[in-house]
Amino acid sequence: MNAAIVGASGYGGETLVKLLSAHPKVTLKAVTSRSKAGEPVSSVIPAMRGVLDDMLFENSDPAELAAREDIDVAFLALPHGAAAEYARHLVDAGKKVIDLSADFRISDPAIYEEFYGASHPDVDLLAKAEYVMPELSDDAWEQKELFACPGCYPTSILVPLLPLVKAGLVSKEHIVVNSYSGTSGAGKQSKEAFSYCEVNESSKAYGLPKHRHLSEIEEQLSKAAEDKVIIQFNPHLAPMNRGIATTITVPSAGATLEELYAEWEKCYSDKPFVCILPSSTRPDTKYVVGTNRVDMSAVKDDRTGNFVITSAEDNLVKGASGQAIQILNLWQGWDETTGLI
Amino acid sequence: MNAAIVGASGYGGETLVKLLSAHPKVTLKAVTSRSKAGEPVSSVIPAMRGVLDDMLFENSDPAELAAREDIDVAFLALPHGAAAEYARHLVDAGKKVIDLSADFRISDPAIYEEFYGASHPDVDLLAKAEYVMPELSDDAWEQKELFACPGCYPTSILVPLLPLVKAGLVSKEHIVVNSYSGTSGAGKQSKEAFSYCEVNESSKAYGLPKHRHLSEIEEQLSKAAEDKVIIQFNPHLAPMNRGIATTITVPSAGATLEELYAEWEKCYSDKPFVCILPSSTRPDTKYVVGTNRVDMSAVKDDRTGNFVITSAEDNLVKGASGQAIQILNLWQGWDETTGLI
Amino acid sequence: MNAAIVGASGYGGETLVKLLSAHPKVTLKAVTSRSKAGEPVSSVIPAMRGVLDDMLFENSDPAELAAREDIDVAFLALPHGAAAEYARHLVDAGKKVIDLSADFRISDPAIYEEFYGASHPDVDLLAKAEYVMPELSDDAWEQKELFACPGCYPTSILVPLLPLVKAGLVSKEHIVVNSYSGTSGAGKQSKEAFSYCEVNESSKAYGLPKHRHLSEIEEQLSKAAEDKVIIQFNPHLAPMNRGIATTITVPSAGATLEELYAEWEKCYSDKPFVCILPSSTRPDTKYVVGTNRVDMSAVKDDRTGNFVITSAEDNLVKGASGQAIQILNLWQGWDETTGLI
Amino acid sequence: MNAAIVGASGYGGETLVKLLSAHPKVTLKAVTSRSKAGEPVSSVIPAMRGVLDDMLFENSDPAELAAREDIDVAFLALPHGAAAEYARHLVDAGKKVIDLSADFRISDPAIYEEFYGASHPDVDLLAKAEYVMPELSDDAWEQKELFACPGCYPTSILVPLLPLVKAGLVSKEHIVVNSYSGTSGAGKQSKEAFSYCEVNESSKAYGLPKHRHLSEIEEQLSKAAEDKVIIQFNPHLAPMNRGIATTITVPSAGATLEELYAEWEKCYSDKPFVCILPSSTRPDTKYVVGTNRVDMSAVKDDRTGNFVITSAEDNLVKGASGQAIQILNLWQGWDETTGLI
Repeated sequence: MNAAIVGASGYGGETLVKLLSAHPKVTLKAVTSRSKAGEPVSSVIPAMRGVLDDMLFENSDPAELAAREDIDVAFLALPHGAAAEYARHLVDAGKKVIDLSADFRISDPAIYEEFYGASHPDVDLLAKAEYVMPELSDDAWEQKELFACPGCYPTSILVPLLPLVKAGLVSKEHIVVNSYSGTSGAGKQSKEAFSYCEVNESSKAYGLPKHRHLSEIEEQLSKAAEDKVIIQFNPHLAPMNRGIATTITVPSAGATLEELYAEWEKCYSDKPFVCILPSSTRPDTKYVVGTNRVDMSAVKDDRTGNFVITSAEDNLVKGASGQAIQILNLWQGWDETTGLI
Repeated sequence: MNAAIVGASGYGGETLVKLLSAHPKVTLKAVTSRSKAGEPVSSVIPAMRGVLDDMLFENSDPAELAAREDIDVAFLALPHGAAAEYARHLVDAGKKVIDLSADFRISDPAIYEEFYGASHPDVDLLAKAEYVMPELSDDAWEQKELFACPGCYPTSILVPLLPLVKAGLVSKEHIVVNSYSGTSGAGKQSKEAFSYCEVNESSKAYGLPKHRHLSEIEEQLSKAAEDKVIIQFNPHLAPMNRGIATTITVPSAGATLEELYAEWEKCYSDKPFVCILPSSTRPDTKYVVGTNRVDMSAVKDDRTGNFVITSAEDNLVKGASGQAIQILNLWQGWDETTGLI
Repeated sequence: MNAAIVGASGYGGETLVKLLSAHPKVTLKAVTSRSKAGEPVSSVIPAMRGVLDDMLFENSDPAELAAREDIDVAFLALPHGAAAEYARHLVDAGKKVIDLSADFRISDPAIYEEFYGASHPDVDLLAKAEYVMPELSDDAWEQKELFACPGCYPTSILVPLLPLVKAGLVSKEHIVVNSYSGTSGAGKQSKEAFSYCEVNESSKAYGLPKHRHLSEIEEQLSKAAEDKVIIQFNPHLAPMNRGIATTITVPSAGATLEELYAEWEKCYSDKPFVCILPSSTRPDTKYVVGTNRVDMSAVKDDRTGNFVITSAEDNLVKGASGQAIQILNLWQGWDETTGLI
Repeated sequence: MNAAIVGASGYGGETLVKLLSAHPKVTLKAVTSRSKAGEPVSSVIPAMRGVLDDMLFENSDPAELAAREDIDVAFLALPHGAAAEYARHLVDAGKKVIDLSADFRISDPAIYEEFYGASHPDVDLLAKAEYVMPELSDDAWEQKELFACPGCYPTSILVPLLPLVKAGLVSKEHIVVNSYSGTSGAGKQSKEAFSYCEVNESSKAYGLPKHRHLSEIEEQLSKAAEDKVIIQFNPHLAPMNRGIATTITVPSAGATLEELYAEWEKCYSDKPFVCILPSSTRPDTKYVVGTNRVDMSAVKDDRTGNFVITSAEDNLVKGASGQAIQILNLWQGWDETTGLI
């Protein structure tokens, strides 16, 4: 299977390059970047020295890429708003598209506009797209032409929480989520605020009270609940490169901790990338960085009646590029873990 | 005024040594540590080289310290359980005691036992002690003989939250607090789990669901509310040395953001160590480390009806040693900021 | 090929576990640790959750391991002094041994005793052992029964420097090497001095003037020079987890920078794990962590007549476990890069 | 004494603002920054919240500043090339100038041009300027009108090395200096290469083989030696905010370690900001950050005949702003440590 990565100069794209260049069933045919066009991949991504020395970044436009016969699938690692034009050309040309941007994550264009501050770039194409959380989506998704990868925060939240909401084990109100993300979540930055001396030895909340990822989190939870679910989501920036630690406080709807764990086991016991930890063990970003796993555990506080659920993932792997490859593997009927750990 | 620091080899004690040795109205007369007795202060705390080269750590026992005529006030930087015996001797000898341990923070011995797993070491002395949050305690505290310094997490939570609870601006239910602390909060450690390679590039929750600091947080909130207040408190360990970033999600009790800010202004406009930031600015631990300040701001989410309040402090200064000195300053009638920034 | 890892609970062993469990031509049959015996590998090495959940740490003694028919090769990730006994039993039983300790790195037992402070644990076995720097050793090594892996610092120094010494391009005097190592180089630590708060935001030299690794560095350089070579080696501890940045200052023996690069090209142009960077590019530990590469470049200072050579490697991969696997691959005649990147 | 800080928005200027606003004998009258003019000091330097809330950054030009009657001394924290014009106006107006830039550090304009790539901006003013290393300069300096502060690297190198060169205890050849600097040494940066994710977990050399600071290091050493001294200087970037760890390898000129220490004691025993550590103790940046100290120690390697000397300082304090204030204190005849620790 021949693949292209569009917009590969950011951290998400870089991680895709690393994973796909080692994937046993994929040949990387094109790597594009407007700003790095003409440069060797291994000079922009020095970790690829000795591996991709002969490949150059291209500056192919959407039409050119769509016309390429040596490309079967394209991964879009572009900013929201920019992905849609590539997606349109590629889908029209019969290519499959795995989109890591936000452009096709939300089925309601009005919600997209509310959270992203611009009208949706291609409403028609939305109908051909599917938001794919590999462990949670039902089979129909594989028939679609465009697969929208969930965002990094949403993955760390929906994997533990969505089945509980769906099963009615937890309240749909008073859900509070706090996430602590490594700085790569902000992308490659050239702003003073993201310089080493400013981020190091610093912790802070940001994006309050209405971070963009709320749009897809709430849409997915609402679908699962068959009811409107609104949550409080408080993201924070942590002085580390990678990883998201998420802590969810949610009132139990009368369920016990055992019932929560039973539901998790039901959903995930055969899922290689979801690791259910004992209630006494707390997930740690350190142990998931570099893997495609979500680790998660829960406690119940009898004083408050709340469950406190914690999860950890690598924002660049399970939260982005690894999950994109997991989608490819499932779509192709390959072992879900091919090229992933 | 002549001071002793009892148990000065940890991070809290070290910070006290630094601050008191530069305090213009205090002479440091004794610095004790069982494990470091006989060693020069500047070899245990190398930052003090050239400043305290001639002072040695002592191993004075409670009776010896209490008998010293050259000591007016003692700061106890000891583990909970160990402070009470020193406090008893010192108070009986007519010394003032500023205690940084948990031993006299909670007025109800049953709560102490519930959270600290041992019966209270000196119930009688509790009556002579006062939990002093300098910005919030009323004047009577200065008459007591023992001043209990609030914990690091409680300070970062109670400063922003307590006045709002007291004024009835926020709900007493569904309060969720997430805090993110630098690793010095765990003290000087020789466990593998706190070694550099394990903590670096790692974020995780711990102490769920019933961290010890809950005992004093809930007691203070309950007194302010004149009602039982129970909260969810989720502490996290961050890969940085110092600082606590706290995020409080609390339903508004019908109050507007303007009313919240007005209440804060009423309480704190003349308080030098509380900095009320605009709603659009998020506190950052980086900017408070080394200072005795709490920075704080709030937003209101009209979708959920919640306030999201964030604060930042230095866990070793405002969360421990700086606040202890602030208490000394106020008790003595000195300018509150003497020896502090 | 069936493999055992002896002493797998440290960082070197952990990296071996990760690499060998994904190696396409190796089956991991046993993982031992005295302190962790009986515990699941994935609880001691949480990164292996979902991968090695069913494997337990063993506490097999040397004789037991040697008697195991399902083991063809053993990797020893033990402290110096402890490896020799395992090596003896395994070699006597006809197993191949790849030893990551220092026990068989130095051919002269007197030098071993001088630097390691104890008499050599098994002088006879030394004759069956070979110090294997895969890019530099000649073919005979593959006939030996025990392969001694070079140390982390020596690898970063010898790869760039040894060919230049051998070719007579540089002086054998006034060689000064400064290395900056991530803290994992000190192993898993439970000392206060290696706790997060002490190492973070700290840089310092240590081990001056006679670090143990000097013994193997000087022996190898002296063999290459056919003359006694003594160097100044200044190791430093850097506040990061992994990676070594080495800077070598060495007077040119009349050679030009072009001649230096020509020599490097001659030695390494077909070596997949040595990356010669242009003189204007400085190696960075960031780009080699996770890989088995040494990146290196050099400048010449016409004012001093010195070459300044810099290299970077991952101390746990090319400096330890990756190199051990590279040795396995070469010994077996497999592609050198199998299971490595 | 009334002071102005010109160019106060960088890390050096910020440190000056903090130190001078707390200095008991200085009143800060003006703080300038072209890019931040009009903004409150406490919004640009949030650590100053509550301390300098009412002061605004100015955009005063050189003539305006020179005409201000309320300014006695000006600290220039400007880039090289930009400082000279301010210095000229201020000196002509009879103000004293303490210049933290490189413009007046080198007495030979040809050397300035060689290293800074531009002709010297004001050769005439050089005659009125003095390079002031407070512990090493002789008394005449206080009569000059402009005091040039040494650079950060040079301070960490010259304090330990210069007296040894002057006394003939060490060779003037084969001197190799490796320094490892925190990232604040590169100033406030908005380049991707200095973003958190790029610097964190990374170590590398840079500026080889002819870093700008060589010009002042070699000029000072040559003056002390009364002979031309050329050294190899290898600076490195470390993943930490502040601090420089310097390691000097220099052949002994027949001197013993005791003679080296005796010379240091002779020079520095009464100097409050130079701390001579025992030969067995290695300086650590952690213990000097926030102070104006240089910590240093030395070993002798009898195998090579070299001394290996290590030092540590805070690049922003002793390496810049603290040393500038130390110069002010000495010039004014105040206690050298006023406002410093």
